[in-house]
Amino acid sequence: MFEQLGLIGCGLMGGSFALALKKAGLVKRVVGYSRSPSTTERARLMGVIDVEAPSALLAVSGADIVLVAVPVAASEATFKAIKHMVTPKMLIMDVGSTKSDVVQAAARGLREQVGSFVPAHPIAGKELAGVDNADADLYNGKQVILTPTEKTLPSHTQRAAEVWSALGCKVVNMTPESHDAAFAAVSHLPHMLAFTLMNSVAGQLRGQEFMKLAGPGFRDFTRIAASDPLVWRDILLANRAELLAQSQNFRDQLALFEAAMQAADPQMLDALITQASATRSNWRMNQLP
Amino acid sequence: MFEQLGLIGCGLMGGSFALALKKAGLVKRVVGYSRSPSTTERARLMGVIDVEAPSALLAVSGADIVLVAVPVAASEATFKAIKHMVTPKMLIMDVGSTKSDVVQAAARGLREQVGSFVPAHPIAGKELAGVDNADADLYNGKQVILTPTEKTLPSHTQRAAEVWSALGCKVVNMTPESHDAAFAAVSHLPHMLAFTLMNSVAGQLRGQEFMKLAGPGFRDFTRIAASDPLVWRDILLANRAELLAQSQNFRDQLALFEAAMQAADPQMLDALITQASATRSNWRMNQLP
Repeated sequence: MFEQLGLIGCGLMGGSFALALKKAGLVKRVVGYSRSPSTTERARLMGVIDVEAPSALLAVSGADIVLVAVPVAASEATFKAIKHMVTPKMLIMDVGSTKSDVVQAAARGLREQVGSFVPAHPIAGKELAGVDNADADLYNGKQVILTPTEKTLPSHTQRAAEVWSALGCKVVNMTPESHDAAFAAVSHLPHMLAFTLMNSVAGQLRGQEFMKLAGPGFRDFTRIAASDPLVWRDILLANRAELLAQSQNFRDQLALFEAAMQAADPQMLDALITQASATRSNWRMNQLP
Repeated sequence: MFEQLGLIGCGLMGGSFALALKKAGLVKRVVGYSRSPSTTERARLMGVIDVEAPSALLAVSGADIVLVAVPVAASEATFKAIKHMVTPKMLIMDVGSTKSDVVQAAARGLREQVGSFVPAHPIAGKELAGVDNADADLYNGKQVILTPTEKTLPSHTQRAAEVWSALGCKVVNMTPESHDAAFAAVSHLPHMLAFTLMNSVAGQLRGQEFMKLAGPGFRDFTRIAASDPLVWRDILLANRAELLAQSQNFRDQLALFEAAMQAADPQMLDALITQASATRSNWRMNQLP
């Protein structure tokens, strides 16, 4: 049980964490801060937070647990802003979709207090951003990746795991580098491809007409293309080396499909699709490594 | 009200059509044929069809409505097989995802009886193929594209529209060529990209490990990659000219993302993602043209 959550960033991810902690009875009071005062006020009116803080520093003051839920590029500035209120007993986590850059930002921003920070990435989200879409059950049944470093206090890593487990999550520990390599492949690349498909179709002369005909396959394939642009701009940039490597790998595989079609080769096309279909049919979400 | 549906191909699409007609009280009797006798038997045991026919020709005998629900590459052989039982009063439809090739197959296979054939593409499906997944509500609320030609009897086109409307579908008429251009962009390309992503990830050294971490975004993006390989091999081949053009267009758009990341250009990346996100956020399924 925590006395006070300091929430920095009252959007979808942060708001959902506050609601989940409250629902689980794990926190007495939530003090929240968002860059936009209207968001902070909205979060209070919705009951996501109890008290509005006028700064990130004051949101952290007196907290025993802190969640930094801002776009990853804002991490370093946020850590710097709160450093003077951070204590060794305070558990600080983030929810960023990239981890190497956040770990570096924490080292630069929190300096000697970096041991309090446990880097976290809950594998959950919605294409609808903002506190209005916050959901106490967003994290339930999902995986959370923790990427502690040698500087992270092991007792904090343990408590972080306990918090997420209490919210119904499966907790996996890995290095920031392994995390970023994996999520370039299974999350960042799919987002970039979904964005690309929307621009590719909409940019055509008859694109609007085509899209009116699209069905459930298009709907599901492109769902993630509606994600928050600023959040995803930062993620793609933060992990661009891994993502560019994945994109090249994807292009090479796409060339195989194109070659099979140019040659009108049913055997080759059959082999490519059968492999893909079998892989997807055997995949299940939330299998632990 | 029809006396008898002749169903050729008792899989997901055909079986769902039979169940939907029955549920709507639009047919008295369904005579079914599948290439695999065990599928035909299973369809009868499930109540999808009432009578098993030993051939496509005998499934059509005595029918006043016929649905050809086979992989598109099998269309011509099917039309040839049933031609001698086709009458001018018989309404024949298909459910193929490509239309130019099916129209040509019907002209060659049905010859002077081609006026009975109304090419149809219901925009519905599941990644789970086979009669076991047949569903009386699969088509309800979906769009159906009809692509009649100058040879199609207008009275048949009218009746085809009435049948699908009675199943809860929105009916749209267009040319086979326009259909194939549109679906290359909004269906066939997304399928090829989803297949490619699965092969791209699974083919990596740590691909299996990466996929265990994947979440809801990956799940939805790749759902269509589990589609039936033979069905989709035929679709991609049948529409390969349009699809290759769409694939090239996609590559050009992907290159813009890669350039923005290589240059670490937040403005350009922001512009690309904002455009994609706005397009997807404004899109709604089943807007009629």
